Amino acid sequence: MPRISYVNGAYVPHQRACVHIEDRGFVFADGVYEVIGLINGKYADECGHLDRLERSMRELQINPPKTRDAIRFIMRELVRRNRLQNAAIYLQVTRGTAKRDFKFPTADTPSTLVMMCWPFNYDANPNVQNGVKVCSVPDQRWARRDIKTVALLPQVLAKQKAAEQGCYEALMLDGDGMINEGGASNFWIYKDGVLKTHQADQSILKGVTRTAVCDIAAKHNIKIVEGPFGLDEAINADEAFCTSATALIVPVVQIDDHVLGDGKPGPLARKIYHYYRDYADHEKQQLYWVY
Amino acid sequence: MPRISYVNGAYVPHQRACVHIEDRGFVFADGVYEVIGLINGKYADECGHLDRLERSMRELQINPPKTRDAIRFIMRELVRRNRLQNAAIYLQVTRGTAKRDFKFPTADTPSTLVMMCWPFNYDANPNVQNGVKVCSVPDQRWARRDIKTVALLPQVLAKQKAAEQGCYEALMLDGDGMINEGGASNFWIYKDGVLKTHQADQSILKGVTRTAVCDIAAKHNIKIVEGPFGLDEAINADEAFCTSATALIVPVVQIDDHVLGDGKPGPLARKIYHYYRDYADHEKQQLYWVY
Repeated sequence: MPRISYVNGAYVPHQRACVHIEDRGFVFADGVYEVIGLINGKYADECGHLDRLERSMRELQINPPKTRDAIRFIMRELVRRNRLQNAAIYLQVTRGTAKRDFKFPTADTPSTLVMMCWPFNYDANPNVQNGVKVCSVPDQRWARRDIKTVALLPQVLAKQKAAEQGCYEALMLDGDGMINEGGASNFWIYKDGVLKTHQADQSILKGVTRTAVCDIAAKHNIKIVEGPFGLDEAINADEAFCTSATALIVPVVQIDDHVLGDGKPGPLARKIYHYYRDYADHEKQQLYWVY
Repeated sequence: MPRISYVNGAYVPHQRACVHIEDRGFVFADGVYEVIGLINGKYADECGHLDRLERSMRELQINPPKTRDAIRFIMRELVRRNRLQNAAIYLQVTRGTAKRDFKFPTADTPSTLVMMCWPFNYDANPNVQNGVKVCSVPDQRWARRDIKTVALLPQVLAKQKAAEQGCYEALMLDGDGMINEGGASNFWIYKDGVLKTHQADQSILKGVTRTAVCDIAAKHNIKIVEGPFGLDEAINADEAFCTSATALIVPVVQIDDHVLGDGKPGPLARKIYHYYRDYADHEKQQLYWVY
């Protein structure tokens, strides 16, 4: 079965899915995106992802290409055509195609909407089972990391550096050695009964899975602090993990050359992983319209 | 006559020129570009632009999609097919199309090469004739501004802000109020016989036209200082101007609310503009192969 993607109103074979060379996503990185997990046929945190997509568009004054309901409909139609039950769904919106000029094009320029999906096995992720190594890199990104834009080149370079060192993720450090987040995940440490993650300001992306984990921790009486912490503190943590929309909760067992604890995934990371899977399984799916 | 563009080996009608939705230029801003001026049939500073394109690719470890000679050939063929004598030629190279994953794709992934061009009237640019207003904005860009990447979203936002204020360009200020450069140009001030522009380090793009102006100034015994200066110093300058590959030398007559001198283009900017045009007219075109 050929893979199907969606581009500006049309469902097309993935191989032939394309955008114009003057699409502002291609020439200016003038676009935003989301990745949504489909776990056993259920959209994980769909509402949170679409809320954030709308916020990203608002912050950059990009016109929504479709209503939320239309986007949800297209997503379901795409999943149906690709016959997937467990997948990652990628949505990208750009400011559309116009003669190359930095300033925004005229208001009637239609935004571009692209969607694609690929199978993802949530039940057998070796990273979740075995834990991962991460390494630290300088955070070279721009000032507005709270917007989920496709201007991802610094993350590409950071994650390439990590891959070259056999690491799953790059921890991005600010000039003072404080950890902002991973290249494509939020980062957490756990020490003496307290879970810590960077506060959600303009220096990190406020992960949708991060928010869910905050809620889960509160529900299960796990003490959380949202605030700054450095590499030194992380190295001495009892446990650490990364969160993201498709990898979910990935235990970190080594940071640079420092092995955490006994070098195996910690009990809290496992517990939160299972809480999250349970939450995703039972999440009330927004089915207020009939599909 | 339909406009023709070039995409990965094919000359195609511009309207149908497209790249795959998983091109890394579209999903990751993982690409670099150049804009080269064609002035009266001559490629302005072609060698400087191709040198910089190669440097950008090297810095990001992007494989060159073609040899320099092949790129020069395609550029000429594109210009010929579009029957242009005065144009802007846009070249973009990306790390190619591959399944979306931050780290670099396998080494055999072909890089993407896109080229397009559009007519540009170098002789009747009202900005050059009348001078322009500019405004200051915070520089929100990433750490490696010396690489000419397509991760241009911060520049888009800066130049949109400028456009909304009726300004030609946005001057990007670092945290200390020092001027780095314009959103898509280098910035210069002239005071008491000394021409000043930001030093070429990682906080600015080393403009090809900037280098030419440095050479021209040296040749004509105009004293140049490459170093930092703030908004305060710029406001009190006798003259100011922006340089870029297609706008060439654009006199600045107002910065935020401050009118420079008598509010008209200054004599030095005009002089350098004419020196540059003369230089571009007489530049030795690299025609070592027969076309």
